[in-house]
Amino acid sequence: VSGNLKATAIAHPNIALVKYWGKRDEELVLPHQSSLSITLAPLQVTTTVQFGAKGEEVELNGRPAQGRERERVLETIRRVRGLAKLPGGVRVASTGNFPPSAGLASSAAAFAALSVAARAAAGLAFDVRASSILARLGSGSAARSIQGGTCLWRRGRRRDGTDSFAEQVFDAEHWPDLRLLAVVLEAGEKETGSREGMKRSVETSPFYSAWAADAEAEVPRAIERIRDRDLAALGQIAERNAWRMHAVAMSSDPALCYFAPATLGLVSALAKARNTGLAAWFTLDAGPNPFILTDLRHQGDAGRLAREHGAREVTTCKPGGDARLSEEHLF
Amino acid sequence: VSGNLKATAIAHPNIALVKYWGKRDEELVLPHQSSLSITLAPLQVTTTVQFGAKGEEVELNGRPAQGRERERVLETIRRVRGLAKLPGGVRVASTGNFPPSAGLASSAAAFAALSVAARAAAGLAFDVRASSILARLGSGSAARSIQGGTCLWRRGRRRDGTDSFAEQVFDAEHWPDLRLLAVVLEAGEKETGSREGMKRSVETSPFYSAWAADAEAEVPRAIERIRDRDLAALGQIAERNAWRMHAVAMSSDPALCYFAPATLGLVSALAKARNTGLAAWFTLDAGPNPFILTDLRHQGDAGRLAREHGAREVTTCKPGGDARLSEEHLF
Repeated sequence: VSGNLKATAIAHPNIALVKYWGKRDEELVLPHQSSLSITLAPLQVTTTVQFGAKGEEVELNGRPAQGRERERVLETIRRVRGLAKLPGGVRVASTGNFPPSAGLASSAAAFAALSVAARAAAGLAFDVRASSILARLGSGSAARSIQGGTCLWRRGRRRDGTDSFAEQVFDAEHWPDLRLLAVVLEAGEKETGSREGMKRSVETSPFYSAWAADAEAEVPRAIERIRDRDLAALGQIAERNAWRMHAVAMSSDPALCYFAPATLGLVSALAKARNTGLAAWFTLDAGPNPFILTDLRHQGDAGRLAREHGAREVTTCKPGGDARLSEEHLF
Repeated sequence: VSGNLKATAIAHPNIALVKYWGKRDEELVLPHQSSLSITLAPLQVTTTVQFGAKGEEVELNGRPAQGRERERVLETIRRVRGLAKLPGGVRVASTGNFPPSAGLASSAAAFAALSVAARAAAGLAFDVRASSILARLGSGSAARSIQGGTCLWRRGRRRDGTDSFAEQVFDAEHWPDLRLLAVVLEAGEKETGSREGMKRSVETSPFYSAWAADAEAEVPRAIERIRDRDLAALGQIAERNAWRMHAVAMSSDPALCYFAPATLGLVSALAKARNTGLAAWFTLDAGPNPFILTDLRHQGDAGRLAREHGAREVTTCKPGGDARLSEEHLF
């Protein structure tokens, strides 16, 4: 165990092009399907963890964490404390360079940074697999934010989840011209969070098993398109998979519709713009704010289109690097 | 064969609460699933057919029919001519009391009226089953507009389609307080018609077979709710089935999204209004214009809500009667 039991880590969020929607084990956060994502720079979350403090102090974006949010952070801390056999309290502070409720996958970056920082503070060696599993237990998609570039989260088969973690397929340098525009159409929390939403889909959608099988089959196809840097072919897979994820959500009982009217407006404008040469496709997680998949050459036009169709904010992202330790502690 | 070989019929459109989306036989218009509908008064189409005319004249809403539209009418005429062994030409005129492109199922009413009129003009005896099958061959959902009230179109099993027709389950008097508000949010033709759209779903949706099985299982449940006049329980089934039909459409490749932004806005306002006591649910065919399922007591509030959320027009419908012959010919 290192000197002051303190470490700081920085991690990027990620956006899945083949999505995770549904757990086969709620407790262990084990998915029904593999998923594939791109890590998003310059969006990032910085987290400092110090063991050996008095009490348990958790501060998120400058405010004491409350309720379930605080509990989830402390669960991750307790797992690390158990591994490293550390007694006593802990202090955690975390801050992102983007708003946490805008649907930009802040919890993925937050739990990835927390996992890497907590393990380092406890003196545990850096380990992609162990960090990815630890992050997964905090928030499923966080498993894909430990490494940069393109990450594949294999669903795994074991009941204890030891084979369900993410690994890098291509690093951030593989496709430096790829761009992902984070489009904020509506701020505010969604009505039904993805945790609750995906549970409802698993339990009530008659399409669920077909969805899981279809997503699993899309993963190797998407990897091939990224290997070839074939934006159009990748865009088609990403849209198809996003529509299908939302189709499964809609087919749940009661139905889950994450599209806002403005989402449909933008998606439909994007499809029309493609007919006149704009190389841009969308993807959408469980909320109203889409990401636009495009490249360096088309990012300007794609961003303008988004602003013309209701975007309050457009953040241009590109493939980011691994979660990493930093000497600039938050306290 | 009667005297002047001329007859006029009037038929209502219908709205399916458990929907038809996908053919197992394109040529014979045989569905993959049974469907259940309510006939809609006062919307109606009037059609006059006269055999023995010179040439083949088809006039729809005051204009000569063109291309594929004309061809479909003449195909129905030829089937009747073949049955009755009538030589020579035909004159057809048809007119509705509502705009044909507003998504109000005008083709269902049109082919039902055409089938009843053509058979009568040819001197064939009235026959629900034969008329429903004839109407089905023109436009699938027209099979459900031969009788009034609640109609069940059984998918059938035979390859020749002789067991795939609709019959009345409850007449229009069974639930006189039921109301269906036809809400026009957007005029104009949809991009992908339902004929082409459902074909794409059958061929490309990984959810297709689960959809067909699910819809089949909803039919007896919906019949029970109508029997009990249980609006809330029927509304839930109708919405669930509509969401699932649209989910299948969205999961097609390329995806089919029939929701307009305004559709989502209204659907979401409706769900909120239900929390404060409005007894109203939606259903949606392959277009942007929903129907609101409600009753006499709530029709005013439901209509106001629709107008507040972008409705250009709201037509209040209730269960209508059978397709019937009329002495008031169009020519």
